[in-house]
Amino acid sequence: MKKWAVIATWKMAENGVKITSRLLSEGTAGKEAVIDGVADVEDNPSFHSVGYSGRPNRDCRVFLDGGFMDGDTLHFGAVGAVEGFRSPVRIAKSLIDREANNFLAGPGAEEYAERNGFEKRDNLTEEMKELYQAEKEKRKKLSAYDGHDTVCFLTLDQAGSLCAAVSTSGLFMKDPGRLGDSPVCGSGFYADSEAGAAAATGMGEEIMKGCLSYAAVSMMKHGMSAMEAAQKAVSDLNDTLIRRNGHADPMSLICLGKDGSFGVGTNIEFTFVTADDEHEAVVMTAKPLGDRTVISVYEEH
Amino acid sequence: MKKWAVIATWKMAENGVKITSRLLSEGTAGKEAVIDGVADVEDNPSFHSVGYSGRPNRDCRVFLDGGFMDGDTLHFGAVGAVEGFRSPVRIAKSLIDREANNFLAGPGAEEYAERNGFEKRDNLTEEMKELYQAEKEKRKKLSAYDGHDTVCFLTLDQAGSLCAAVSTSGLFMKDPGRLGDSPVCGSGFYADSEAGAAAATGMGEEIMKGCLSYAAVSMMKHGMSAMEAAQKAVSDLNDTLIRRNGHADPMSLICLGKDGSFGVGTNIEFTFVTADDEHEAVVMTAKPLGDRTVISVYEEH
Repeated sequence: MKKWAVIATWKMAENGVKITSRLLSEGTAGKEAVIDGVADVEDNPSFHSVGYSGRPNRDCRVFLDGGFMDGDTLHFGAVGAVEGFRSPVRIAKSLIDREANNFLAGPGAEEYAERNGFEKRDNLTEEMKELYQAEKEKRKKLSAYDGHDTVCFLTLDQAGSLCAAVSTSGLFMKDPGRLGDSPVCGSGFYADSEAGAAAATGMGEEIMKGCLSYAAVSMMKHGMSAMEAAQKAVSDLNDTLIRRNGHADPMSLICLGKDGSFGVGTNIEFTFVTADDEHEAVVMTAKPLGDRTVISVYEEH
Repeated sequence: MKKWAVIATWKMAENGVKITSRLLSEGTAGKEAVIDGVADVEDNPSFHSVGYSGRPNRDCRVFLDGGFMDGDTLHFGAVGAVEGFRSPVRIAKSLIDREANNFLAGPGAEEYAERNGFEKRDNLTEEMKELYQAEKEKRKKLSAYDGHDTVCFLTLDQAGSLCAAVSTSGLFMKDPGRLGDSPVCGSGFYADSEAGAAAATGMGEEIMKGCLSYAAVSMMKHGMSAMEAAQKAVSDLNDTLIRRNGHADPMSLICLGKDGSFGVGTNIEFTFVTADDEHEAVVMTAKPLGDRTVISVYEEH
């Protein structure tokens, strides 16, 4: 049983995990501590799948999605297809305590954010404009894993509460108004402090076909460890999609048990970051190998 | 084992169920047959929670949501916060075979619909304008079950395929951009031809906290009947929300087993319609009574 723990998707979350870890170690509630970690990734111009300098859509505009869930109450907040704001995860979090209207998309979400004083920001950078132009000239078919590396954080705090928070700019060259799994409760994220938490990255359209995060938390609720649940949830959906449709797009899942143990499941190589009261932040690599997922400490290539 | 079957939410679906039934009995695929049934409800000006003459949002504008899922492939399509089109369910269905961008919201969804030739329609009627003005003047707190009677259809066709289709104008006086459960795969609808299908009506924000449709289908996959799954899914979520938060908003669920048997679960009184190869369309009433749901043939009050 860990006193506190955090797991996050992708190496880009390393600094954010350190920030969230320090807050959790000081006793800050997870639903506060997680935000600074995710926002660190949103603000970093080096990461092109989340927040500032995210990859643009088909019209060369950057639209962001975010989600947040409190595992104690099951309250959640989510925003989708939001342009011109600094931190979708902060907007999502602010929506959780409303009696209704917890999931807002498009101009309505932007109007809410503006009315409530959320910081505005033009998230389109010169670098991403150039990438867009190059892609457009190539007119290539969309590559299935380009640019949808969602940042997902799961936390267990010292009060035993679980929390999930996610943020993404979504699929590169996506259609206007496209929502992936990230703002969708149960697909992109889910947290239940009595069972476990989970969050997903990969091709959102595939992840939603299996409500991947809810599926894994449900398995933890029925007694599986975070690692068993993460791997079974991904392999069940992956196998089902291959059997029915001949293929499955990339999907990766992180899980956190109510005891602070972590789990990952993936059908591609992906990186993640973990920390807890006994271990500092470490970047790990997960690779699928048959039915298993092989995990090792990340090494720079 | 039924040759074909259909179940739909609310008495308003009665005529649509007859339309869908006739098509299913003639051997039409469920994913075609279901659309004419849902569209019948969308087009009827007497029903104020779906399509034409739906209840307006906070700004007196009618925004519609729709969802569609093919239980054979798990492909789905969904649109949210769409204004000015006749049939959200038809737009949702058209999105299922795309490789990505299956879930569109707001102006992006409207642009897609326009580009693809979907029929436009101003869905705001004088009657609903007057209702809006009266409500605004009363400035009452939103009543939790006013105006979110989503129409949901589930079908089993003669090829053994399950399908789900839903359409709604959402919560009366909702915020701009608000998405309920209806366009959310796993919450508002889910279909897996190897397990079962489910769809929900009620307070979307509560339904999404438990991925209600996916939860019920998952129970059917593990061997429960449609009736057991519908009732357990609703009572589990209802009890969890009451225990954690002191209350649970209204939610009702319909289920269809892969054998064509139906199930309903609800924490309020609600009506539904069923038909199959042995029974003509009949409107039924479901009422919660302790842990059970009491079902009877509907009688006009």
